[in-house]
Amino acid sequence: MSFNPVQLILKKKRGQKHTPEELAFLVNSFTEGSLPDYQMSAWLMAVCFQSLDEDEVAHFTRIMKESGLQLNFSHLNYRIDKHSTGGVGDKTSLILGPIVAAAGIPVPMIAGRGLGHTGGTLDKLESIPGFNVWLTEKEFEKQVTQFNLAIMGQTENICPADRKIYALRDVTATVASLPLICGSIMSKKLAEDVTGLVLDIKFGSGAFMKTLDEAEELAKLLKTTGQKNGLDVVCVFSNMDQPLGRFIGNGLEIKECLDILNNQKFMQDNYDYYGPTRDLSLIISGYMIFLGGMAKSPEEGLEIANYILASGAALKKFEQVAKQQQATSLTPLTSAKHKFAIISEQAGLIKEMDVEAIGFAAIKLGAGRLKTTDKIDHSAGIEMNCYLGQKISKGHVLAYLYTNKSEECEEVSSQILNAITVDSSIKNFEAPPLIAKVF
Amino acid sequence: MSFNPVQLILKKKRGQKHTPEELAFLVNSFTEGSLPDYQMSAWLMAVCFQSLDEDEVAHFTRIMKESGLQLNFSHLNYRIDKHSTGGVGDKTSLILGPIVAAAGIPVPMIAGRGLGHTGGTLDKLESIPGFNVWLTEKEFEKQVTQFNLAIMGQTENICPADRKIYALRDVTATVASLPLICGSIMSKKLAEDVTGLVLDIKFGSGAFMKTLDEAEELAKLLKTTGQKNGLDVVCVFSNMDQPLGRFIGNGLEIKECLDILNNQKFMQDNYDYYGPTRDLSLIISGYMIFLGGMAKSPEEGLEIANYILASGAALKKFEQVAKQQQATSLTPLTSAKHKFAIISEQAGLIKEMDVEAIGFAAIKLGAGRLKTTDKIDHSAGIEMNCYLGQKISKGHVLAYLYTNKSEECEEVSSQILNAITVDSSIKNFEAPPLIAKVF
Repeated sequence: MSFNPVQLILKKKRGQKHTPEELAFLVNSFTEGSLPDYQMSAWLMAVCFQSLDEDEVAHFTRIMKESGLQLNFSHLNYRIDKHSTGGVGDKTSLILGPIVAAAGIPVPMIAGRGLGHTGGTLDKLESIPGFNVWLTEKEFEKQVTQFNLAIMGQTENICPADRKIYALRDVTATVASLPLICGSIMSKKLAEDVTGLVLDIKFGSGAFMKTLDEAEELAKLLKTTGQKNGLDVVCVFSNMDQPLGRFIGNGLEIKECLDILNNQKFMQDNYDYYGPTRDLSLIISGYMIFLGGMAKSPEEGLEIANYILASGAALKKFEQVAKQQQATSLTPLTSAKHKFAIISEQAGLIKEMDVEAIGFAAIKLGAGRLKTTDKIDHSAGIEMNCYLGQKISKGHVLAYLYTNKSEECEEVSSQILNAITVDSSIKNFEAPPLIAKVF
Repeated sequence: MSFNPVQLILKKKRGQKHTPEELAFLVNSFTEGSLPDYQMSAWLMAVCFQSLDEDEVAHFTRIMKESGLQLNFSHLNYRIDKHSTGGVGDKTSLILGPIVAAAGIPVPMIAGRGLGHTGGTLDKLESIPGFNVWLTEKEFEKQVTQFNLAIMGQTENICPADRKIYALRDVTATVASLPLICGSIMSKKLAEDVTGLVLDIKFGSGAFMKTLDEAEELAKLLKTTGQKNGLDVVCVFSNMDQPLGRFIGNGLEIKECLDILNNQKFMQDNYDYYGPTRDLSLIISGYMIFLGGMAKSPEEGLEIANYILASGAALKKFEQVAKQQQATSLTPLTSAKHKFAIISEQAGLIKEMDVEAIGFAAIKLGAGRLKTTDKIDHSAGIEMNCYLGQKISKGHVLAYLYTNKSEECEEVSSQILNAITVDSSIKNFEAPPLIAKVF
């Protein structure tokens, strides 16, 4: 069907609802190149102001999914994946993937790069020597079928409409739009041909959505969009007012995952810095195992997840997948030349962290990209040595920097000192729970 | 100065105010080609939603003016022009231009084509055999200096930023935006180097702004923008709930102008169908003569205008200018093959007209363009034979169609019948005054 693009832009500008055919025309003619960039960007900006309703988002997402190759796992009963809206130190995929796969549930995981101040699973995996994230769709399907788990980057063939629209949004200030964000996330997940999806909805100072309210608005839209496209969706709202776990940075985060898969703790001052990463990974695993038909309830799923982690089966699954994806060793790159301690200048309670600033500090050390052309230093990162609600004395080490760029350390140290609020006036402070709610 | 375009788009998307330097960067880098279309269209759409404040519009307009060649009439004390926001049958320029020029005031008139359902001065002039609207800037300046009046189309050199931005707005549904409309109108007028401007602000069913309120909003912005750029501006709000005067269509409108310049009337049923065109032309002339320093008040200006029209000096001026611009005869093209009468099927009072529909009906007969590539039939058009508040009997001729496309007449007839509401239930109806207010 053919439409006048100007009339379609005008329709959205006036806040009117598009038909599925109109959305298909916009997305498909842009993807194939007959709708020019300047009309798509005008439409995207109109969407930023007038939004899309639930029906429009569901169709928009489906059309983007259908713009390219869709994986086919119809020979498997259940296929479950997880998606995080992005955080700092958020490494759960590499723990829960192996756990759920070891529970007998296929996990076809198409992962992404770091975005803004947050990290990305692909960057983390590439700190494992030899690990190949560029599988073909055939290899991916085969590996998921054989080993229940494969992790790869989005290929050229999957959701080309999303790739092209995302690239345009990036340069036209139209990234921040709930329906567009939702379409981008869910089209890729739908293309994985999963039957169930757990969304880790991050909120707080280190998330893109700073408040639970904002996070809920996106979560509702994601869930509805999934459901309207035949997908079971569970949303876990996890707190991002402090980095997750001990490490931020690619090789360091892999080390944390391997330690956890090895059932190790990292105790300092009676606090296990690996605890939050492990707990969140297990809880999400529980929901995935439930959605994957292997447990009668998420609670039972969690029990199974606990058992699998403790048994070493998850570690074995990780090793199996890494070997399958050509990893030559399981020792991640963590050999940064310099390690600097950041010392608190005052005593008190750790009351607040600007986690976005901490994320950007890690990027400055080399752990991420400011431009897409930047190269990542997989050994760079930050080790957290404090947590919300902790009582510290003057001279306490708040964090360690790992870097090959010693010239950045002074500025990064002061950024991190500024990002961590130590309050000497209060006696007690209860840190927010790791998980605020699930729906 | 250089900026990150994404940050500038984001700034406007968030409703923040641009600095003059930011506006200059956006306009100039787009005009020279370094800012891509898709970023400009996203910014334009953001402006449609968040608007520009008076300062921003003043700078935006100035920057567009400065993007190209600016005429120079500094050797003349006063230069006065008039601009209409567009109507149906709106032909006053061709009467008031000669009157004001004959009063000794330079009138450098850069005119436009028809837009939407409205006519354009250039199209009208081109129905005079040989009339050349494509002067060079030098020829234009010389003719204004020598004869006080020249009328030409916008050259490539004048306001190139506006040309390029307007073309993009046209295909991205970003035409309807007060600050963008204002910038487009006023940048061209400022480039004429005029000292004063009378704006004929049309409102009603045949105008782009249907209500006086909407018209006032635009008028205020136009006036402020002119004033902030050192220009005297008077706004005349004229009613467009019926076509202006007797004729719609290019050659026919020229005939009406020449008849009026010849001091002729066209009486039917004790009503002079030339009256509104003559009255509005004279009143605007009065304001222009006042702004041009030749009268102490608009009222005195009107007296002078009346005198000049009655004396035949305005007709002489028109003939002089037409000859100067290579007209080979003053007989416009009005020789359409067919003339059809549209007959009222009922008696009553003429209560309402959908003048936009009447404008589009004239276009269908060949009097205008639906696409920029369409060719105009200069002889096509409509003769009005009714007016608001008129009491008619059944069988009264409401209008005549002039066309070479007899196949369109049936549809156009029924469009016009639908566009004119004859009410048999009311006894009295007072037509709105030609001019609602002046400020």
